[in-house]
Amino acid sequence: MARIVMKFGGTSVANVDKIRQAALHIRREIDAGNQVSVVVSAMAGKTNELVAWVNEASKFHDAREYDAVVASGEQVTAGLMAIVLSEMGVPARSFQGWQIPIETDDAHGAARIENIDPSMLIDRMDKGMVCVITGFQGIYPPTGRITTLGRGGSDTSAVAVAAAVKADRCDIYTDVDGVYTTDPRIAPKARRMARISFEEMLEMASAGAKVLMIRSVEMAMAHSVRLCVRSTFDDPNAPQVTPDGVPGVPGTLVCDEEEIMEKQIVSGITLARAEAKITLRGVKDKPGVAAAVFGALADANIVVDMIVQNVSDDGARTDITFTVPDSDYDKAMRALETTGSAIERESISGSKGGAKISVIGVGMRSHAGVAASMFRALAEKGINIQLITTSEIKTSVLIDEEYAELAVRVLHTYYGLDKQDV
Amino acid sequence: MARIVMKFGGTSVANVDKIRQAALHIRREIDAGNQVSVVVSAMAGKTNELVAWVNEASKFHDAREYDAVVASGEQVTAGLMAIVLSEMGVPARSFQGWQIPIETDDAHGAARIENIDPSMLIDRMDKGMVCVITGFQGIYPPTGRITTLGRGGSDTSAVAVAAAVKADRCDIYTDVDGVYTTDPRIAPKARRMARISFEEMLEMASAGAKVLMIRSVEMAMAHSVRLCVRSTFDDPNAPQVTPDGVPGVPGTLVCDEEEIMEKQIVSGITLARAEAKITLRGVKDKPGVAAAVFGALADANIVVDMIVQNVSDDGARTDITFTVPDSDYDKAMRALETTGSAIERESISGSKGGAKISVIGVGMRSHAGVAASMFRALAEKGINIQLITTSEIKTSVLIDEEYAELAVRVLHTYYGLDKQDV
Repeated sequence: MARIVMKFGGTSVANVDKIRQAALHIRREIDAGNQVSVVVSAMAGKTNELVAWVNEASKFHDAREYDAVVASGEQVTAGLMAIVLSEMGVPARSFQGWQIPIETDDAHGAARIENIDPSMLIDRMDKGMVCVITGFQGIYPPTGRITTLGRGGSDTSAVAVAAAVKADRCDIYTDVDGVYTTDPRIAPKARRMARISFEEMLEMASAGAKVLMIRSVEMAMAHSVRLCVRSTFDDPNAPQVTPDGVPGVPGTLVCDEEEIMEKQIVSGITLARAEAKITLRGVKDKPGVAAAVFGALADANIVVDMIVQNVSDDGARTDITFTVPDSDYDKAMRALETTGSAIERESISGSKGGAKISVIGVGMRSHAGVAASMFRALAEKGINIQLITTSEIKTSVLIDEEYAELAVRVLHTYYGLDKQDV
Repeated sequence: MARIVMKFGGTSVANVDKIRQAALHIRREIDAGNQVSVVVSAMAGKTNELVAWVNEASKFHDAREYDAVVASGEQVTAGLMAIVLSEMGVPARSFQGWQIPIETDDAHGAARIENIDPSMLIDRMDKGMVCVITGFQGIYPPTGRITTLGRGGSDTSAVAVAAAVKADRCDIYTDVDGVYTTDPRIAPKARRMARISFEEMLEMASAGAKVLMIRSVEMAMAHSVRLCVRSTFDDPNAPQVTPDGVPGVPGTLVCDEEEIMEKQIVSGITLARAEAKITLRGVKDKPGVAAAVFGALADANIVVDMIVQNVSDDGARTDITFTVPDSDYDKAMRALETTGSAIERESISGSKGGAKISVIGVGMRSHAGVAASMFRALAEKGINIQLITTSEIKTSVLIDEEYAELAVRVLHTYYGLDKQDV
């Protein structure tokens, strides 16, 4: 017997037929003797509709009213799911955030979960009932008003519920069947992973893989909640087999490193396109310069990705290079030009159309030379590296976007990630 | 300064533009120095959409889940209305049923309001804030689950809130501008009434006028809540003038009889079409026969309208005639035939296509001969009366549907209800 939290996103509950399909997965887990709580998103498109009405009502709306309106979408799905389950003979009831309660702070529209009382949920699960919980929402107890967690917050809700009820697993049902070594549309030999560590998943998500919200992975790591990414559209009654072909949970398990027996040096390769690079040359090498540069960009609401600063030759002047999304390139250049007097520098230059390729793997910690072999593999194909940044378990390079797909495929093969049966 | 509850139905809040139009009425009342709470329905069509999903999910759904789903519609409107009001500079916040709380019994889907704590609402209104309240819904405190009051329940919510906060008036904003002496589509000379008593309004509603839900009028009468029926689509900034042309509240005020100075003998005339009549002849005149007949119909879920039983000539046998909707005629005949042995009678006959015309007025209590004059007026036009029933302030006749419009116009003129300026 296991205790499982199952989360279904908007495309998995887009209409009553799809809700019924999702319910078959729930019934399978109940039939297997497991205890189940379910977290649901709004039906696909509904949250956008509600947000559009709020914006039509006023561009400068009270975030508390925004939350009251947009939280209604999950309420509909939760009730419908409970009805569908009951009709299948699975005892179920819906819970809204305030009914549990899921307590948050008062940052309406982007609230953080502070506490979940698990007693009611555990009591129902002990009795064989499925608790269907509205994702994305909670309550701020001092005012008794509904809060929402921000877009994609249902993943976070599911992980928080799983932590609160001490679930053995939190299954994230989505429209893909797991986490791949790289994007299969780019590298047809991409392999679905059976397991990946929290740290690697975080780096994958930050580096461009869009399977899970970063926040939910962080929370899962902090509370040691084992996450499983799997597909709603798999046959609910098919034998449950892992990507490695053994009986177990289909999909990719995101878990502690200790649970992964055979660690890959490189687990995955990600690609982020449309990165523009900007270089400030001959910047005075003194305290506060970097703060002035990136402060100006932050004030203009520009998110900076890679940052590289070399040591200066003579200790007097240095070069700083960083990347921003192509769409923010012009705005970033303007922001830096208008702060010209504050930031002494010899020149600014830059270009759009870069691609960031990252190789990720916890094995890098103990294996020297991963970065070097990556550069060599790219050099053999004549791909020029414009920028390099590294973290403990990731090496990223910026290259010309033209070579992006080629680079991904070359590295995928180079690190032995290709499917064996292809 | 007055304290007013303003209720807006589905067509009055069908989209954000209409919500804005409704909000102008609210701002007018605030600008006039009044205290205001607002009760809103779901946007037109939304409740039907939600109900359809529930029925698609399961025909035999848990009423508690039905309530959780369908209550979400009002939540959206309340939030949007609060946002629109705030943007107009009118301080406002939304309240859901459970946040006030509006306490009901546990008859999910058709709950009755048992208690409303007015303290939070009065506190906010004292501070000049508009409380925007979700109609139609409440909470059953022992389980903490959301309840709904059944279709049209927002009128009832508004009256209950008005009673709880001791409002001076409960304004029901709708797509008609008041209560008319009869249907203006049938009698172009129909006049909009400035005032009508609760009792007359109840008889009008039961007899076919569809302006207000009967339950909300009953509750208003019980708690002496003055109701005003008025149009959302009137110019919010036009001078406020009663149907009598004097400064005051536009629309029709439904109030205690004592507030109506000049009582009409007949206040209004209503028409209900498609009434079928069924006659049981030669029924044994003994206790329990009527119970057997109407018990059989109730078991078949058939609502009976008029019932007439004559005294028998010889004390042995009698005739019973009653009406049912045309659509239930065949079902009613079958129900009576299958209970043939229980109800001894000589014959059953009946026909569809009747129309019930009712004349209504509290003045009938003190004026003899209203019924007689009604029969005379119809006889003068050669209209045959098939059935007659009376209550204290209403006389109803069943006639052939062909003559329905003619009868309404004749009686409208006969009782002096025609507009003077036409």
